Amino acid sequence: MNVTVRGRTRHYRTVSFDAASNAVQLIEQRLLPHEFKIVAIPDFHATARAITEMVVRGAGAIGATAAYGLAQGARAFRGSNLRAFAKHIDLVFQTLKDARPTAVDPVNAMQLVRAAMAAGETAAEQQALALAAAEEFAESDVRHCAAIGEHGAKLIRSGMNVLTHCNAGWLAFVDIGSATAPIYAAQSRGRKFQVYCDETRPRSQGSTLTAWELAQQGVPHRVIADNAAGHLMQRGEIDLVIVGSDRTLGRTGEVANKIGTYTKAVLAHRHKIPFYVAIPVSTIDWNLRSGLKIPIEERNPSEVLGAWGVNSRGRREYVRVANPTSDAFNPGFDVTPAGLITGIITPAGIFKPAELWRRRRELQES
Amino acid sequence: MNVTVRGRTRHYRTVSFDAASNAVQLIEQRLLPHEFKIVAIPDFHATARAITEMVVRGAGAIGATAAYGLAQGARAFRGSNLRAFAKHIDLVFQTLKDARPTAVDPVNAMQLVRAAMAAGETAAEQQALALAAAEEFAESDVRHCAAIGEHGAKLIRSGMNVLTHCNAGWLAFVDIGSATAPIYAAQSRGRKFQVYCDETRPRSQGSTLTAWELAQQGVPHRVIADNAAGHLMQRGEIDLVIVGSDRTLGRTGEVANKIGTYTKAVLAHRHKIPFYVAIPVSTIDWNLRSGLKIPIEERNPSEVLGAWGVNSRGRREYVRVANPTSDAFNPGFDVTPAGLITGIITPAGIFKPAELWRRRRELQES
Repeated sequence: MNVTVRGRTRHYRTVSFDAASNAVQLIEQRLLPHEFKIVAIPDFHATARAITEMVVRGAGAIGATAAYGLAQGARAFRGSNLRAFAKHIDLVFQTLKDARPTAVDPVNAMQLVRAAMAAGETAAEQQALALAAAEEFAESDVRHCAAIGEHGAKLIRSGMNVLTHCNAGWLAFVDIGSATAPIYAAQSRGRKFQVYCDETRPRSQGSTLTAWELAQQGVPHRVIADNAAGHLMQRGEIDLVIVGSDRTLGRTGEVANKIGTYTKAVLAHRHKIPFYVAIPVSTIDWNLRSGLKIPIEERNPSEVLGAWGVNSRGRREYVRVANPTSDAFNPGFDVTPAGLITGIITPAGIFKPAELWRRRRELQES
Repeated sequence: MNVTVRGRTRHYRTVSFDAASNAVQLIEQRLLPHEFKIVAIPDFHATARAITEMVVRGAGAIGATAAYGLAQGARAFRGSNLRAFAKHIDLVFQTLKDARPTAVDPVNAMQLVRAAMAAGETAAEQQALALAAAEEFAESDVRHCAAIGEHGAKLIRSGMNVLTHCNAGWLAFVDIGSATAPIYAAQSRGRKFQVYCDETRPRSQGSTLTAWELAQQGVPHRVIADNAAGHLMQRGEIDLVIVGSDRTLGRTGEVANKIGTYTKAVLAHRHKIPFYVAIPVSTIDWNLRSGLKIPIEERNPSEVLGAWGVNSRGRREYVRVANPTSDAFNPGFDVTPAGLITGIITPAGIFKPAELWRRRRELQES
């Protein structure tokens, strides 16, 4: 999407590749929203570290980063010995896979790249095929998000107030985003509406990343405390909720997403406000039979006990907010049952949660 | 309640009075949970400032502070001219009233003190009556909270997990608190249970004040992000919710309380978890006929856009968390309808919200 830095507006992707320098280019997300910077990652070891250290985060974005990282590693190989090359590729694959051991997107993306390489007869051919496959993976991520936007845009009419939770924006993908795609598409059709961004404690991705994204695109928006959404709904101030998902069960329509999503769904249901989940098909888990089986990551209590921000001297700093002798419990995700979800916006169209399984062929081929 | 400072445990009240130095003594709540300090406020102008600047906050606590402040002002008068004395008392009353113009407790408390003074014939007699009335106001606040604890304790059994929101603890009253009173009473009966403290963004009274209170009393507790309560309820980890209230409508049973209370009530209702509101009778508004008429204070957006805490060098600091070009909407309170409330714990017993009006004589006389 477009970013304006010191008065100059340019289009950026979250993840891209510079073939000449064999570098993966990433928006350094840990500096946002206080500083916008593109970092060039020179080799696959550093690309793996960038994934681990969350320079880049979000399912689509880390998938594309791993795909480019595999191509980057392949292109760094010098020589023509195919056995040595294959061994090298295994090392690159494993290094990038280990960067976020629980994430499924990097592995899926790299498997596509490796499958494409198999058609090459020489190391040089395989290197060229790897880069082409990584580029195609990134392009398909953008196409999927654009299609989500096309389908979702019809949900947003002028005058509406739209609530979103966490960041399923373009920073979490290569471009456009999932939950933000209908917002950007509706804006490009000239519709005037307002977005409320849930702060999304404890990591505040709503007030940092989503608010930054919307500000850059000129979408009118306001940040609210997570506690305020219920009050706004009660007063008739929310017309539509759109969130993303980390894992959606194809068999049951249950949606795992950032902690607090379930609460917004319960509130929306009480107030008869449409609640939509926007996802690429890669997010659908076709195997798991119950949302109770989705492992819920328990994260560091320090996230709840304090906050990261910028102090009065412009320096990034962590402050401890909570009582120093108290501990915290910090589940990272929750699971929203299908009955609370109005629809699931996919690149192939908008479906009821219960329809996913019946339409699985169509979805998998989209 | 008891506070342990550098290994020494002593009983403190949130608000007290030292007759010898004519000083109001307050726990400096702005330093909590990072520092515990009692400040002696030397004159009524400074007492009014302490209320304005939130050295002391919470309905019962600012009521007692104003009552003591009026006695303090009265006792500072030198001379025996009754007309001059009456004029002086008017000034003191107005100064303390203006300290928190929307709060009703300081005014109610000072009216009790002024009514008691009327029985005195000389300025000296009225000064003595003022102090006695202020002391009686503080004692009655403690008695009411103790009675809430007696009634509410039966709701808490060993093995339970209790959720609370914001701080309706002893720091918000002279001692014991409202929502915390059943917790302290159950603890003193030897029951073993755990409390989850909602962080309570944006001002984080749950993770700062309530967590500090519970830690000081040795009540097992964990802080959670406001987003996590729904997930815990879904997994069967919450057995009971107790909150306080800033205003409860005697005619409808609707409860105004810190933003986010309504959300917890909706979640508790969905999961059939008992949801109780603990209040002194002074919190009941017998006039207003609809919760929609309760004015909802809109507070400074900076509360949502950042956080106060202690940095790595031990200094209190505000950090800006949110995107610097984004604004926030910050309603301070919300209103929970009677249908979501299991019971209201008062000093006169536990009532259904709809019972308040029928039992108003009994309540008003308690």
